[in-house]
Amino acid sequence: MTTWLPTLKTATPEEGYELAIKLARVAIKMTQPDVAVRDKLRPIYAEDADALIASSQVVATHFATVAAANGYWRETS
Amino acid sequence: MTTWLPTLKTATPEEGYELAIKLARVAIKMTQPDVAVRDKLRPIYAEDADALIASSQVVATHFATVAAANGYWRETS
Amino acid sequence: MTTWLPTLKTATPEEGYELAIKLARVAIKMTQPDVAVRDKLRPIYAEDADALIASSQVVATHFATVAAANGYWRETS
Amino acid sequence: MTTWLPTLKTATPEEGYELAIKLARVAIKMTQPDVAVRDKLRPIYAEDADALIASSQVVATHFATVAAANGYWRETS
Amino acid sequence: MTTWLPTLKTATPEEGYELAIKLARVAIKMTQPDVAVRDKLRPIYAEDADALIASSQVVATHFATVAAANGYWRETS
Amino acid sequence: MTTWLPTLKTATPEEGYELAIKLARVAIKMTQPDVAVRDKLRPIYAEDADALIASSQVVATHFATVAAANGYWRETS
Repeated sequence: MTTWLPTLKTATPEEGYELAIKLARVAIKMTQPDVAVRDKLRPIYAEDADALIASSQVVATHFATVAAANGYWRETS
Repeated sequence: MTTWLPTLKTATPEEGYELAIKLARVAIKMTQPDVAVRDKLRPIYAEDADALIASSQVVATHFATVAAANGYWRETS
Repeated sequence: MTTWLPTLKTATPEEGYELAIKLARVAIKMTQPDVAVRDKLRPIYAEDADALIASSQVVATHFATVAAANGYWRETS
Repeated sequence: MTTWLPTLKTATPEEGYELAIKLARVAIKMTQPDVAVRDKLRPIYAEDADALIASSQVVATHFATVAAANGYWRETS
Repeated sequence: MTTWLPTLKTATPEEGYELAIKLARVAIKMTQPDVAVRDKLRPIYAEDADALIASSQVVATHFATVAAANGYWRETS
Repeated sequence: MTTWLPTLKTATPEEGYELAIKLARVAIKMTQPDVAVRDKLRPIYAEDADALIASSQVVATHFATVAAANGYWRETS
């Protein structure tokens, strides 16, 4: 069985950021599993500044975790 | 007596994420113990983008804790 | 004189979670010391999804602190 | 000259919690230095569940800092 | 192929702060890729105190990560 | 060329707190560079309890970073 989250390790900071976005979205999917409802909500909050900023906050929290998990990619720089 | 939270250790990051979701939900259960009220609230906030994003933020905060508790599953990758 | 917070140490993760809930509630008591007002507010926010999620966020932040204070209960598992 | 914040060290976790409350309040005083305005706002937000929870969140964030600064009072327990 | 985030290392705290702002904005771009919609939203939230404060919160969270990644620029001071 | 943020080091916790306030404000300036608009917004949010609490939250997040950068000023106490 595959997993959507095999590891927190990523090759680069950019991939780490993409993982943070994924981590933010999966919680929404698990709370609202109905794809039709999510598809209906997306265009609404994507045009709402408050919702966009709140989403960015969730990404920031996950990015902190992913960055720590990768030792801040110190060897990459 | 059993406990709903015997440990923060999980075998994989994915299980850690599921634990984070559980940790987010238990606080709501403890503040609102009436399952009938919670069942009434769930479909409302599950169709509300702001509530979904706020829920995802709580999960992100708990995931940070669970990930740290597991040494970021560095050996799993 | 007794204290409501003698230590952040708890025997188990579950007790740590209960301490996090207590830590979240005490700040509210200190800002609103009137028990009559708090009793009036509780049923209102306990039926409000946004308030329940926000409460869960405060618990998550305190749980991170309590978990760190207990070395994530790594010996308990 | 005296300072309102000579140190983050406190003798006990409870005093650390009180310091966290102080840290949360000082930012409000610095943004709104007019005591008359603050006195007018206080009874309003003290009867508003959302504001009380948001205040508790600020305390939680500062408590995390104070607790870390005190090594989680591990020797106190 | 270039990357928008080659490293979390910056020469100075000020550059680290600028990187935190960038990290906050990219999540918004990824959720709302349509530049026309973003251009429409920007003047609205830039005149809204709540949105400005919420944006500043996201920057604060990312700055914590960037600062940790740079060992708090302790050698720079 | 001067910089507004040469270092995260401060002599005392109180100066660290003032730096946290500065860090919170600069993000707002960068998102809303027009001083006339900011001057118009300030009296509005300074009389709004929710905005004051949210501002205090941003300060708390930055203070955590500044405190960590200064080793919690352990030698100062």
